[in-house]
Amino acid sequence: MGQSFILINLFGGGKGKLEKFEFWEEGYKKFVRFAHNKDFVLESGKTFGPITVAYEVYGEINKEKNNIILITHALTGDSHVAKHSEDDPKPGWWDKFVGPGKMIDTNKYFVICSNVFGGCQGTTGPSSIDPETGKPYGARFPIITIKDMVNVQKKLLEALKIDHILCVVGGSMGGMQALEWAVSYPDFMDGVINIASPLKLNAQSIAFNEVMRRAIMADPNWHGGDYYDKTGPSQGLSIARMLGMITYQSDKLMDKKFNRRMKDPVESFFESFNTEFEVESYLHYQGMKLVQRFDANTYLYLTRAMDLYDLGRTYGSEEEALRRIKAKFLLIAITSDILFPLSQMRYMRDKLLEAGVDLVYKEIESDYGHDSFLVEEEKYRNIISEFLELLYNKEMIR
Amino acid sequence: MGQSFILINLFGGGKGKLEKFEFWEEGYKKFVRFAHNKDFVLESGKTFGPITVAYEVYGEINKEKNNIILITHALTGDSHVAKHSEDDPKPGWWDKFVGPGKMIDTNKYFVICSNVFGGCQGTTGPSSIDPETGKPYGARFPIITIKDMVNVQKKLLEALKIDHILCVVGGSMGGMQALEWAVSYPDFMDGVINIASPLKLNAQSIAFNEVMRRAIMADPNWHGGDYYDKTGPSQGLSIARMLGMITYQSDKLMDKKFNRRMKDPVESFFESFNTEFEVESYLHYQGMKLVQRFDANTYLYLTRAMDLYDLGRTYGSEEEALRRIKAKFLLIAITSDILFPLSQMRYMRDKLLEAGVDLVYKEIESDYGHDSFLVEEEKYRNIISEFLELLYNKEMIR
Repeated sequence: MGQSFILINLFGGGKGKLEKFEFWEEGYKKFVRFAHNKDFVLESGKTFGPITVAYEVYGEINKEKNNIILITHALTGDSHVAKHSEDDPKPGWWDKFVGPGKMIDTNKYFVICSNVFGGCQGTTGPSSIDPETGKPYGARFPIITIKDMVNVQKKLLEALKIDHILCVVGGSMGGMQALEWAVSYPDFMDGVINIASPLKLNAQSIAFNEVMRRAIMADPNWHGGDYYDKTGPSQGLSIARMLGMITYQSDKLMDKKFNRRMKDPVESFFESFNTEFEVESYLHYQGMKLVQRFDANTYLYLTRAMDLYDLGRTYGSEEEALRRIKAKFLLIAITSDILFPLSQMRYMRDKLLEAGVDLVYKEIESDYGHDSFLVEEEKYRNIISEFLELLYNKEMIR
Repeated sequence: MGQSFILINLFGGGKGKLEKFEFWEEGYKKFVRFAHNKDFVLESGKTFGPITVAYEVYGEINKEKNNIILITHALTGDSHVAKHSEDDPKPGWWDKFVGPGKMIDTNKYFVICSNVFGGCQGTTGPSSIDPETGKPYGARFPIITIKDMVNVQKKLLEALKIDHILCVVGGSMGGMQALEWAVSYPDFMDGVINIASPLKLNAQSIAFNEVMRRAIMADPNWHGGDYYDKTGPSQGLSIARMLGMITYQSDKLMDKKFNRRMKDPVESFFESFNTEFEVESYLHYQGMKLVQRFDANTYLYLTRAMDLYDLGRTYGSEEEALRRIKAKFLLIAITSDILFPLSQMRYMRDKLLEAGVDLVYKEIESDYGHDSFLVEEEKYRNIISEFLELLYNKEMIR
């Protein structure tokens, strides 16, 4: 696929200095590169660069520039939020929600989604080449935060000369980014949609993340993060994914899908551990499927960013952080979510209300668990499309 | 510690053939050995032997022989259910429940607890020496079931000339054994106490077990199960334990104990993945602690036995199995249990009632999760001591 390079100059960072953005495209995927002088400041205080962001866009910006929606993805997502056409061979991770005539209607809205900073689907992350050494960063990649991800997205929007958006929308780790957007850049958007994503991880979620990380780092093929010229830690990543998949579903759903059904005849279970219940077969398949498309180091960095997400740390106190929010806020919880249970989502609802946020709070009755927001589009359609409508109409009046 | 050997003959197996039981002791731990001719029939139809059972006893059998309580242990338990005296340096896993004057009062009752078949604390399991090869069985140990564990316990009681017991008591995997006892040998006991243990594992529990097994088997130090002369799969077993510990607790308890507190200063989190939240530190400690006392292969065999537990398979149908029960049944569920949630325990309650079982069902209001039955003795004291009292008084009238 051909690459086209365009160089433009923009005023960036509010400091009046010239920021050079490089652009190119590969098929539907677009790229922008910046921080060439290692001058992107991380939340940790370290500087880093250069940074490439991979992003995709859907629909068109209207002449008022008031129909822009930023979608932020979850742990293993990427910029390919939806198919670009019926002929697009690659399914998008949110095809059910995003597209022409869908609840996030690309006939009406301009949608942009970028692969997160630290990711492995085009945006700079641990698998990217460190220009100083000519080798992948591996574990020399800096520890990053949700705020860093958001700041990289902000640069992307600056590069595209977008200085205001209608709404930022995200679920799970994407919801953390959406919240951080609302707190970091309160004037930048009219609305925020946060789905199944709490204010911060509780001890249990940190614990699950750590078990997953240990599974990766215990794999001898991890090699301290330097496995890019070798067989990678596919077993470790696969085990991590298997565990993740359990937490994304409710026990009720798993019973509905698999119950105790066996893939192998019962007699063979008395012969070896290689036999499988259907649920095991499903998890093995999901584990190996992720290995084919995802980088183990990115799994480490992004789960750690989730652990570290804590508005209280970044803004002095949680209350102070939440009081910064000006956007209209739609918070959606899933009743059967075991990863981010209702108790945490209701805590967040209460905190948002206490902080005076203009909040719409909805609970989706579901047996699907955390994954509901990727699957049960019919339950979200009216809630999300009406909220967007509301924001959009307000914008039109302004 | 000295060993004393005693050989006795008993009529065993109901076939009129002589069964030779060998006995010996090491400190408080007692041993019995049988099936010298590889003639112990497993549920799989295979035969196996010889089998050694390690057991411990507390209190004394009264002259009516109607005060005998069999305790069956959970996944990582052993025969050391309680301290034998105040001077006993080794804590028992159920010291809070079992002892002089406690709810399972060893001044009144004679308590016996054996390490399960497949275990690693004295009873024959995968780490035992196969007399045919002179090497540990490893993965050549046969796949066993909960029913096999119970049948081995039955042999132990035969060896001790015990042909009737007051009650069998177990929690978690121990509860599965208690249930199997009631179904397999309905006339053998007056009562059964089953705590936090369902009729069968659901898909989610099988899934958690499989992730734990994969963590062990993916460890290169597992060596297909033949690691006994080498460094064993301690990392894999440790990861398995870390995951297990999450499922034994409620998210509420974990938040109470650890919340998001950090063991290392926040700045150091930006330096490496070696930093720890308190909950991570706790899990790492628990993981390494288990490695020091437990065999990884036993972890594989016992979790698989739990997966395979299914009365419907063994007895034609679940209903048929449960209708065999004659014992008075105390079923205790824990409200915050995420491993065996209330929905499963209530399903079991309903099935027991439908089968006409004389059932007492109690729900323990707790934030502790599954582990409540190891910790919150005050919530169980009256329920358990009254149930035992009831059984015992009935026995006295007979």
